[in-house]
Amino acid sequence: MKIVAIRETTLDMAEATRNAAVGFGRMTASVAVVEVETTAGHRVRGYAIDSPGRYASGAVLRERLAPRVLAADPAAYLDASGTLPDPWKIRALAMRDEKPGGHGERAAAMGLLDGAIWDLIGKLQDKPLWAVLRGPKLGTPQVPVYATCGFYRGEDDLEKLRDELERAVDLGFDTVKIKGGAIDLDADRKRIDAALEYLGGKAKLALDCNATMTLNDARLFLSAIADLPIAWVEEPVDPLDYDAHRALAAEFAVPLGTGENLYSAADARNLLRHGGLRPERDLLQFDIGLGHGLVEYLRIVAEAEDAGWLRENFVPHVGYRFALQVAAGLGLGRHEVGPFQRIAYRPAMAGACALPGDAPGIGWEADPAFASLFAALDR
Amino acid sequence: MKIVAIRETTLDMAEATRNAAVGFGRMTASVAVVEVETTAGHRVRGYAIDSPGRYASGAVLRERLAPRVLAADPAAYLDASGTLPDPWKIRALAMRDEKPGGHGERAAAMGLLDGAIWDLIGKLQDKPLWAVLRGPKLGTPQVPVYATCGFYRGEDDLEKLRDELERAVDLGFDTVKIKGGAIDLDADRKRIDAALEYLGGKAKLALDCNATMTLNDARLFLSAIADLPIAWVEEPVDPLDYDAHRALAAEFAVPLGTGENLYSAADARNLLRHGGLRPERDLLQFDIGLGHGLVEYLRIVAEAEDAGWLRENFVPHVGYRFALQVAAGLGLGRHEVGPFQRIAYRPAMAGACALPGDAPGIGWEADPAFASLFAALDR
Repeated sequence: MKIVAIRETTLDMAEATRNAAVGFGRMTASVAVVEVETTAGHRVRGYAIDSPGRYASGAVLRERLAPRVLAADPAAYLDASGTLPDPWKIRALAMRDEKPGGHGERAAAMGLLDGAIWDLIGKLQDKPLWAVLRGPKLGTPQVPVYATCGFYRGEDDLEKLRDELERAVDLGFDTVKIKGGAIDLDADRKRIDAALEYLGGKAKLALDCNATMTLNDARLFLSAIADLPIAWVEEPVDPLDYDAHRALAAEFAVPLGTGENLYSAADARNLLRHGGLRPERDLLQFDIGLGHGLVEYLRIVAEAEDAGWLRENFVPHVGYRFALQVAAGLGLGRHEVGPFQRIAYRPAMAGACALPGDAPGIGWEADPAFASLFAALDR
Repeated sequence: MKIVAIRETTLDMAEATRNAAVGFGRMTASVAVVEVETTAGHRVRGYAIDSPGRYASGAVLRERLAPRVLAADPAAYLDASGTLPDPWKIRALAMRDEKPGGHGERAAAMGLLDGAIWDLIGKLQDKPLWAVLRGPKLGTPQVPVYATCGFYRGEDDLEKLRDELERAVDLGFDTVKIKGGAIDLDADRKRIDAALEYLGGKAKLALDCNATMTLNDARLFLSAIADLPIAWVEEPVDPLDYDAHRALAAEFAVPLGTGENLYSAADARNLLRHGGLRPERDLLQFDIGLGHGLVEYLRIVAEAEDAGWLRENFVPHVGYRFALQVAAGLGLGRHEVGPFQRIAYRPAMAGACALPGDAPGIGWEADPAFASLFAALDR
């Protein structure tokens, strides 16, 4: 088996929405394909796509990581059988001559390469990725999900919010998340009260503040919603301000979620060491693809388990079908679904759980929301 | 005044050398220009260049940061006089719709834009940048420097080491730094002993380990050199492993330096909060350009001063003439010079100090090592 091509392109992910940190009017993301030729002469393709929110990272893949892999002797990246790529060897090859620290766009580019390799590993064994990760003895897993809705909109904000929440309940979701943490606390509280009213107790409500509040603003926000039944509050403060997380976890009972803007095991370790988060209630939301990929994520999960965290604490940021397969394979707590975003991601569901399916690899081609996005890569 | 163009290109920075973390065989860096048209109709250009080691970051500048600035009304980025760009406004504009955290290639691209703006601010006032930062009452500053030499080489390693150290002493340097932290402790110790012999007491010796040792390997390394007169040891462990820094600072007397792979005020704050470093001896080596630029650096310096650190503790990573101007203007401890690297940077010196000169702005055009590098941008 030999890697014969690594290609990427940039997707337009623009939407007329915003969260507390960013507007999505010029948002982009990368999609990538890794193509291999098997010893029998067949071509097989593995695909990957970024979670939205951090822009395309294709230049790093194109200029640095891909040339290192393509220049290597296949022996340097094949596993012991000689028929499968070894994701750990690919990672080491692609990241050769890269300094430690500074985990930004590079982490996302590495995650694209890693995600496409895991897709290939499933396809080359004719197994869905969750079965590769979980082993053959367990039945088809079902993964609890939640629906991300309620981005801020300049026009018709509350009408769109009501429409999305009602449709999410109709689709079967028992938990939804909306944006919070905008400057005006009163307006935010009214919007949250409205969301609870629209849901009418049919689904739990979580809030996502996108990390722009100061510690004191976060205290005011959490105090203002302390009487409400909120499932969790995401990113109340800067993702790197571990002391602020420690303070909020000590002062407020509501579960906290964070980690989607920390892109390495080194950063994740710091959050667990210094952030004062509580394994009995808080959520670890590291993004698998934006954070170097599954090789790094497996290390983060293992280290967190050693520190007393459970698989249920892990609720990866977006990641679409890749995150679904990993959540199913590893038995993670919950999977994020954005059914009303520019990519209308709607995995097959059974009740309030998503089903990763039996398609080999990650199953991107079997999902109409993604199949067409990868077409531009299939030269 | 109006910004009319922002351009960048990638420089080949390849060298047949390595440190403990990376080889430089395919190294690149970005250069950038910001061109303004004054109200009198004159065109003025500000320049910036990355420190080497992290590859070019031009795609982020080209795809995200520059279009935001170029699309803005000049009123959004001019200072109160209307004649100068305001670096804080430029920063906010360029970073609009960027999420917190993940400070990697984006931080370097922002640093290019920031550096070019500061060059313009000097030129538009006909003052060297150090005088803009320092105010008019102080005389021409002199900045203590050290020479970075002794990268690992596959061939003739010790001969090249001897040659560089002797030439550094001849050039007037009273402090030099060589690489350390390679796997084989005995070979490293022999190389360090040789360097001390070559220097013959004419210059102090510092060591740069480039952040690849585990905590225990770092303990072995620091124990193995504990009897030697070493000025400081740089990056013994991963830049994000604050607990490991804390352990080493508690166990070893030698001054430690770190920070060149931390690219934001949030990361710098974590190092100072959690890293256990000692203001009476340790060095803070944040890279001004790779870490969002001078706007961010001024914030880091101010916060560190509040925490008991002195300007003398700040020894920025590379940065060339931009870092020299900032060190002169702010009165920082020392400036890094690489006289024998691919860009043979040799600022004018008086004794063992570098002189930033009187050229307006940063003075790139007056320095033959840089003038030609920016030529490709001058369409």
